[in-house]
Amino acid sequence: MKEYRVKVEVKLKPVVLDPQGKSVLSALRNLGFGEVEDARIGKLIELTIKDGDSGNVEERVTEMCRKLLSNPVIENFDVKVEEKNV
Amino acid sequence: MKEYRVKVEVKLKPVVLDPQGKSVLSALRNLGFGEVEDARIGKLIELTIKDGDSGNVEERVTEMCRKLLSNPVIENFDVKVEEKNV
Repeated sequence: MKEYRVKVEVKLKPVVLDPQGKSVLSALRNLGFGEVEDARIGKLIELTIKDGDSGNVEERVTEMCRKLLSNPVIENFDVKVEEKNV
Repeated sequence: MKEYRVKVEVKLKPVVLDPQGKSVLSALRNLGFGEVEDARIGKLIELTIKDGDSGNVEERVTEMCRKLLSNPVIENFDVKVEEKNV
């Protein structure tokens, strides 16, 4: 039985407007950080997974993203699997 | 003038309860992903920064994190600077 730490990055697609990012951008500029050109906000999901079969962890997490973790209409996701010391 | 892409990961400190993560965990299990042991949700902030002085981009973004992007009482942050082709 191996343990994995999986990092999932969920970002809005580049064509989708990001009002939260725009508001962070304008707040940063008001604070004096004029060098910031753009800001976009996404989600970072960290999963701990226990599984005997190493091969299909990435595949299973991709399925989780499609079914629950992301909205495929407006978001892209990226899965990174790291093996963990148990 | 160089352009940088900066990725900021903001995560709840390990000792802080994460109700959103718990609810994702239970939803994943109900969907049949019983191998998931834990889930924690953080923020991913992507900044585009234009700056002449390469040295202090990381320092400036760390200041942004302290002042606006994170809540240092309950969150940790991690800054990664990439140079971008302009």
